[in-house]
Amino acid sequence: MKAYKEMGREELLALKEELESQYAAAKAKGLKLDMSRGKAASAQLDMEMDFLDTINSSSDVNTEAGVDCRNYGLLDGIPEAKKLMADMMGVLESQVIVCGNASLSIMYDTVARSMIFGVMGSTPWCKLDKVKFLCPVPGYDRHFAITEHFGIEMINIPMTEQGPDMDLVEQYVNNDPAVKGIWCVPKYSNPQGYTYSDETVRRFAALKPAASDFRIFWDNAYTIHFIYEEKDEELLEILTECEKAGNPDMVYEFCSTSKVTFPGGGISAIASSEGNLNFIKSAMTIQTIGYDKLNQLRHVRYFKDIKGMKEHMKKHAAIVRPKFEAVLDVLEKELGGLGLGTWTKPVGGYFISFETMEGCAKAVVEKCKEAGVVLTGAGATYPYKKDPRDSNIRLAPTFPSSEELSLATDLFVLCVKLVSAEKLLESKA
Amino acid sequence: MKAYKEMGREELLALKEELESQYAAAKAKGLKLDMSRGKAASAQLDMEMDFLDTINSSSDVNTEAGVDCRNYGLLDGIPEAKKLMADMMGVLESQVIVCGNASLSIMYDTVARSMIFGVMGSTPWCKLDKVKFLCPVPGYDRHFAITEHFGIEMINIPMTEQGPDMDLVEQYVNNDPAVKGIWCVPKYSNPQGYTYSDETVRRFAALKPAASDFRIFWDNAYTIHFIYEEKDEELLEILTECEKAGNPDMVYEFCSTSKVTFPGGGISAIASSEGNLNFIKSAMTIQTIGYDKLNQLRHVRYFKDIKGMKEHMKKHAAIVRPKFEAVLDVLEKELGGLGLGTWTKPVGGYFISFETMEGCAKAVVEKCKEAGVVLTGAGATYPYKKDPRDSNIRLAPTFPSSEELSLATDLFVLCVKLVSAEKLLESKA
Repeated sequence: MKAYKEMGREELLALKEELESQYAAAKAKGLKLDMSRGKAASAQLDMEMDFLDTINSSSDVNTEAGVDCRNYGLLDGIPEAKKLMADMMGVLESQVIVCGNASLSIMYDTVARSMIFGVMGSTPWCKLDKVKFLCPVPGYDRHFAITEHFGIEMINIPMTEQGPDMDLVEQYVNNDPAVKGIWCVPKYSNPQGYTYSDETVRRFAALKPAASDFRIFWDNAYTIHFIYEEKDEELLEILTECEKAGNPDMVYEFCSTSKVTFPGGGISAIASSEGNLNFIKSAMTIQTIGYDKLNQLRHVRYFKDIKGMKEHMKKHAAIVRPKFEAVLDVLEKELGGLGLGTWTKPVGGYFISFETMEGCAKAVVEKCKEAGVVLTGAGATYPYKKDPRDSNIRLAPTFPSSEELSLATDLFVLCVKLVSAEKLLESKA
Repeated sequence: MKAYKEMGREELLALKEELESQYAAAKAKGLKLDMSRGKAASAQLDMEMDFLDTINSSSDVNTEAGVDCRNYGLLDGIPEAKKLMADMMGVLESQVIVCGNASLSIMYDTVARSMIFGVMGSTPWCKLDKVKFLCPVPGYDRHFAITEHFGIEMINIPMTEQGPDMDLVEQYVNNDPAVKGIWCVPKYSNPQGYTYSDETVRRFAALKPAASDFRIFWDNAYTIHFIYEEKDEELLEILTECEKAGNPDMVYEFCSTSKVTFPGGGISAIASSEGNLNFIKSAMTIQTIGYDKLNQLRHVRYFKDIKGMKEHMKKHAAIVRPKFEAVLDVLEKELGGLGLGTWTKPVGGYFISFETMEGCAKAVVEKCKEAGVVLTGAGATYPYKKDPRDSNIRLAPTFPSSEELSLATDLFVLCVKLVSAEKLLESKA
C-alpha cells in the first residue's frame, strides 16, 4: 500500500471516509478491552497454581539454618531467598535485602529515605532547594510518579536502542550537583524492550557525579523475562562494573517476582553495596520487624534455585510470545510501509513501544477508548505525562486473551490510520 | 517473709551472701533463654498450621466480587479482608485500608508521610522547627524508636490503670501546637496490660488540639488478645467517639494479625476518617500497586468472620494463659510481701510490667543476662531508653516453653532479690 504522505488531498479524504465507516462499525461492536497495563494473563497465573501448595500444614517451615519463618526475625530476608534473588540479578547474596511483595515500594522508600535522612550521611534532600532526576524517555510511568510526588524535578533523556543517551547523562551527572538520580530499566526496557549495551553500562559505572549522593536507580524488573529463550539478551552486571570503576556505592538495583510468580503475591529485593545496605538497614530496623518470610520460603521451595526459576520463565514465555507476535504481525501487515508509525520488536519484557506521527498519540488513545479499548494513557511514558512530540503509545499485549488481543489490535491500527489521515488532511487544508 | 527494708545491715549481709551463692549456682546451669520480646511460641504457631492450607492449587482465588487476588489491583485491600479487620477494631469497613504483614510499617509510613507531606494539607513536619509526640510510659519501644528516628521530641506521660494521665495530655495537646501526636496502646497496653477506661477514651475524643494536624496514633495491637475470654475487657470505639465530639479526623487506628495468625506472615490495617484515608491513599497509590491480596484472602478463608477469629483466639489464650499464671505465681510466691517490686496482672496482651525498687532495673536485667536469661533491655519501655526511675522491666512470658519459663522466672526473682539487697545495703553503708 501507498504511504499516506504521498496521497493527495482527494485520495486522503476518500480514505478517511472509508476509515470512518470502519471505525463506526468497530465502535458498534461494543468492545470492553484493557491493554493498558503490564499485567500477567490468567493463563500465566493458572499454570503456576501449584506454587500455592509449596508450604502447607505438613511442611517444614524452618530455613536451612533453622529459623522459623512463621515468627518474627530476619529483617533482611531468609538466606535462601537472598540467594535466589541475588542469582536473578547476577549479584552476591551478601549484596541483597529481600523485601515485601513490590519492588515499587522499595523504590518509593528509597527516595523517601533520601528525602528525610539523605544518602549515607549527605544532606537530606528535603533540605535542598532543588533535587533533579534524569528520566530516560519514554519510560515507566510509576517511576516518574514517585519523583513527581516528592517534588523532584525530572529531566528527559532520550532513549536509544543501546540505552539512554549517555553523552547527555554524563553532561548532567558530572556537572550538576542537584542531579541526584536516574531511573533505569536496563533490560527489556519499559516500554521499548531495549537492553542496555555493555558500553552503556560501563559508561554508567564510570560516571563522575558532581553529587556524592547521586544514585542510579537500576530497576531490573525484567531480568529473566525473555520472550525467546534463545534470544535472551545479556546485561552487564552493574554492581561489579561500578566497583571496578571506583564507584561502589553508586547503584541501587531492584527486582521482584511479580511477573515470575504472582503480581499480587511475589517478593522483591534490593541489591547494593555494603555501605548502602547498612544505611538502608539502619532505617529498616525502625520501619519493620521483617517482611513476610513464609512467602519468601514459598519461592525458595517452589523454584529450588535460579535454574528452576528460568525453567519456569519458559512457561511464561510460551504464553506471552504468541501475543507479542500477534500484535507485531498486525502492525506489520496493516501499517507496514504506510509511514504512520514505528514500533519496537522486543525479545523480552512486557511491552511494545509505538511511535505515531507527531501529534497523534493522544488522539489515537482517545479514539481507541471511545470504541472500548483502553490503552496506557498517551503521555504516561513521559515525566509530568507530557510527551513533547505527542507520539509515544505503550502497548501491553500480555493481559488480554488472544481473541481480545486481536480485536484490540485491529482497532488500534484502524485508529492510527484514521487519526493519521486526519492529521495529514489538516496540514493540507 | 520479712520485707527487706525492715532488715538490719547484718541480716541483709547474710541474706545477700545466701542469694549470691544461689546466683552462682543458677549461673552454673548455663541457661540460654530469651524472655525479651512478645513473640508467639511454636505451640501457638503449630496449632494453626492448617492456615497454610486455606489457598491451594484447587482453590478459587477470586474475591466475592470476582477480583483475582493473584494479580495486581485493589490498592486498599480486598473487601472481605476490610470487613474482617474492621470487625477486629469495631469500626466500619469503609474506614479501613488493609496493608502488608506489619502494622509497624504503616505507623512508620504514617509518620514519614507527615514529615514529608504534612497531614491533610498542613505544613510538612520536616519544615517545622520542632515536632513533639506524647509518649505514655512505660510503653512500646518500637513506637519510641520511630519518633526518635525522625527527630521528633518525645515527652513522657505517666500511665495509670485507666490509661495515660489525661490532665497532662490535655494540657500539652490543647496548648502546644508543636505537639503533633501521641502513641497509645489502648487495650491490654504494652507492657502493663491495662485497658483505657471509657472516661479516658472520651477525654481523648474531646481534646481541643492546638495543632490541626495533631493525631492520636491508636495502636490497637491486642484488641482481641484476651488471656481469659470471660474477663475480656471492653474498649470504647474511638473513631465514633471522636466523630461525636466533633474531631472526626483526629485518630489513626492500627491493628494486625501478627499475633492472630503468624507474626511473620499476617496482615495489617489502618482505620481512620474518610479525610485521612483519602490523604493516605493519595500517597499509597504512588507507593505501591497493592499489598499481598493472597494473604488477605487466606485470612478471610481461614476465619470466615470475626466470630471465627475470636474462637481462634481462645486457642491462643489456652496456650498463653498457663504461662502468665506460672510467672505471676512465682512472682507472688517469691516476692510477695518483700517490698521489692510491684507488677501488673494482665487479663490480655503479651506482657507483664514489673517495677523494681528505684534504681534496680538495669542491674536486674544485667544480672539475668549474665546468667543466660535475656529480658527486654531496662529502659526500653521509655523514650530514648531512659527510664528516669530505672525501675521498669517488661516481662514477655509467651515465647519460652513452660519449663524454660519456670527457669527464667526463678532466675528473675533471684536477681530482683539480690540487686535489691545490694541496693538497700548501699543506703545503709
